[in-house]
Amino acid sequence: MNEAQILDFVKSCGHVLLSSVDEQGFPHTRAMLAPRKNDGLQHFWHSTNTSSSKVTQLRKNPKACLYFFDPQQFIGVEIIGTMTVLEDQASKDLIWRTGDELFYPLGKTDPDYCVLKFTGQVVRVYANFTSQSIVLQQNI
Amino acid sequence: MNEAQILDFVKSCGHVLLSSVDEQGFPHTRAMLAPRKNDGLQHFWHSTNTSSSKVTQLRKNPKACLYFFDPQQFIGVEIIGTMTVLEDQASKDLIWRTGDELFYPLGKTDPDYCVLKFTGQVVRVYANFTSQSIVLQQNI
Repeated sequence: MNEAQILDFVKSCGHVLLSSVDEQGFPHTRAMLAPRKNDGLQHFWHSTNTSSSKVTQLRKNPKACLYFFDPQQFIGVEIIGTMTVLEDQASKDLIWRTGDELFYPLGKTDPDYCVLKFTGQVVRVYANFTSQSIVLQQNI
Repeated sequence: MNEAQILDFVKSCGHVLLSSVDEQGFPHTRAMLAPRKNDGLQHFWHSTNTSSSKVTQLRKNPKACLYFFDPQQFIGVEIIGTMTVLEDQASKDLIWRTGDELFYPLGKTDPDYCVLKFTGQVVRVYANFTSQSIVLQQNI
């Protein structure tokens, strides 16, 4: 798969697995809805609750992994990188969608609403019993 | 969900996400087929290739996470614990299945075939926008 095909696959997934590392060094994984926005394979934006355990973990240790997986084809795309927790209003406005009040009752300015911005470094694709790696150019 | 319901859910999943931590401290996640064997929610056995990157990571750092997820119901069960890489023949015989020659051409004694035994410590269940945690009794 080339980068365009990998990106098409990633964008076809309805959810993504986000992994972080806690203070004791244990990895933690949880499903998230598909990213709200992306810039190629390098940057992904998600909304989440500021009070969630993932935010606590990622503020202390930004090392993270996004894993996009289709169980039918058994294709997985892992992206290793770092996560930044953003609470500025411009970032919060950027990915807000109508209906998000379900999760953040106070709206766009809800202090329990924040943005996770992921910056990828290395992509690894697992398909047909083989894997390939791509180091992403760092356009910060 | 009580422990029996969580176990039923886990056993209904056709795959599981295994996360480990590399030497640089980054979490890594990949899909595995459903465990070959389990003992409640505390122990799970998988087969894998001895030469795989997950085995390299888990030998150096046994801290691991299993995540069972159903995207239709958006229910996730995370189990945090440690992974042991087993290469003794009794363990390799224990979970061998006909057809495994596809992955390990030399059969049950293939040096590239090994067993991952997971020991869980804490279970976290995410369902209906809420989460609950269960600390597992340590019956080693």
